[in-house]
Amino acid sequence: MKSNNSMEELLGGVFDGKKRAVAQLISMAENSVEKRMEITKSIFHRTGDAHVIGITGPPGAGKSSLTNEIVKEFYKEGRKVGVIAVDPSSPFSGGAILGDRIRMNELSLHENVYIRSMGTRGALGGLSHAVESAVMIMDACGCETVFVETVGVGQSEVDIMKVADTTLVVSIPGAGDDIQSIKAGILEIGDILIVNKADCKGADLVRNTMKAMLQMGKPRDDGWIPPIIMTSAHRGDGIEETCETIRDHMNRGERSELMDDARRKKLYEVILSMLQQEIGRKTSDIYGLADELTKQIDRMHMRQINPYEWIEEKVEQCVK
Amino acid sequence: MKSNNSMEELLGGVFDGKKRAVAQLISMAENSVEKRMEITKSIFHRTGDAHVIGITGPPGAGKSSLTNEIVKEFYKEGRKVGVIAVDPSSPFSGGAILGDRIRMNELSLHENVYIRSMGTRGALGGLSHAVESAVMIMDACGCETVFVETVGVGQSEVDIMKVADTTLVVSIPGAGDDIQSIKAGILEIGDILIVNKADCKGADLVRNTMKAMLQMGKPRDDGWIPPIIMTSAHRGDGIEETCETIRDHMNRGERSELMDDARRKKLYEVILSMLQQEIGRKTSDIYGLADELTKQIDRMHMRQINPYEWIEEKVEQCVK
Repeated sequence: MKSNNSMEELLGGVFDGKKRAVAQLISMAENSVEKRMEITKSIFHRTGDAHVIGITGPPGAGKSSLTNEIVKEFYKEGRKVGVIAVDPSSPFSGGAILGDRIRMNELSLHENVYIRSMGTRGALGGLSHAVESAVMIMDACGCETVFVETVGVGQSEVDIMKVADTTLVVSIPGAGDDIQSIKAGILEIGDILIVNKADCKGADLVRNTMKAMLQMGKPRDDGWIPPIIMTSAHRGDGIEETCETIRDHMNRGERSELMDDARRKKLYEVILSMLQQEIGRKTSDIYGLADELTKQIDRMHMRQINPYEWIEEKVEQCVK
Repeated sequence: MKSNNSMEELLGGVFDGKKRAVAQLISMAENSVEKRMEITKSIFHRTGDAHVIGITGPPGAGKSSLTNEIVKEFYKEGRKVGVIAVDPSSPFSGGAILGDRIRMNELSLHENVYIRSMGTRGALGGLSHAVESAVMIMDACGCETVFVETVGVGQSEVDIMKVADTTLVVSIPGAGDDIQSIKAGILEIGDILIVNKADCKGADLVRNTMKAMLQMGKPRDDGWIPPIIMTSAHRGDGIEETCETIRDHMNRGERSELMDDARRKKLYEVILSMLQQEIGRKTSDIYGLADELTKQIDRMHMRQINPYEWIEEKVEQCVK
């Protein structure tokens, strides 16, 4: 009973926009798959209003500074803003280092800004699920806009970015072989392409390469042509243009059936994958499969038992 | 019968070290979860001998060139070498671009080098599972060493690197804020730390930062202190030292119980996750859950049905 009461209190706190409640509920959702189910179930009816803006790109591209500048523009307008900084490269130590953290702390002092840093540590059941529930919690607490910033350029970032309605891909002029640091795949998920550190040598080359790659690709179904914006976060150049373009894309999206379709599709994927995961996990618990595997693993390792035959056998036994 | 025959033929071809058979079997494993199970089951008894060397780091760090140089050293010794180049940032277009591909094609001309490029496209059931089966197939065809090179620094790379016995983490001097491009997490998975483009400005700063971060971290269980090696792949500097260090780590590993433990642990994780995935997938097929979800998704999207309650209901129904 005690824990139910405190969960109810926390939920109440979230609906009232209390920062502490938001932080506690996100931690709860991170640390237990069961709790996450319970939480997302309880807040679902209060969600669906937030516009989610994803910001991704390689390490060192200055995404934190850029996010910082953009968020400042958004909370100036009196809106509640959520910021989730994801660092999946940090499965052990969890979270950003040095400069990032200092900038984040500054932002978090503002009454209308809700900040959360997430690493893989503690993100049971996959980081992208943990991010999804954090977005939902911020949505439920009344954030009109939620920024999700993720360090990296791998598959997990593409997965995380599925949660976003508007995605910014940040690139920078590199150390000679710019071509390699612009990945075709990452461009294809970008609604807005940013060349940050535009005051550095090679920025034009990056822009021209991007332009060429966009022209080679097939036109998007929604007819949106991703604009390329040159920024310099530390000088403040291009921030205003970026914010205006985000708003353009947001407004366009709110009016369009395509964004509705995209959100429905995302929901479908999330729910199906969560359902299958739950079924696998529950079945494994009920049949004590993890323990059974522990007993067999030595003989599997010695090539005395074929683990794939074992899997077939177990699936046969447990799935009816 | 036809398809069984050709599967048998393919397996025979792989055991005989035929490149074409290796390529076809890897594609098969990529494109169908069922086939992958069948293949890994059939080749399992021929695996476990290859030493897997992972190479990871941010985009533009020159990993392809470095891998290229290292592989050359290894096949010179007359060993069969496998190379798997993973580009998870490319979920749509699949695979590396321009320079990478050219270098890879050169390597692939050598009789004893087996090369495979993998993107997320077609990698059903997760890229790391697809990479695992590709490693097993190369192992079964007689490769003593299999290199897995992955672009990126996110969670999927950390997952992919779990397959490696020896992991190289490649960094480069950056454009001012070096500190950000060296992630604590990625350092912790590295057995050998490479500072590539060591002839560029800032290389010493990167090395010193790495050294400091290593000293701050806790000593490893196996007593191995990850050496930091300065390389310049295009000049050929440091390649020999890198190869010797790889061999040191390999030899040390083959003699140690710790590597045995690590491999057992990896096998356990792979098998448990594959088992749970199979259970979830099969159950979902049997009960037609994907179709049922398709029918409900509109009402879920409209917030008329709570999808998390629906998941609970379905899990309740299907898991007994």
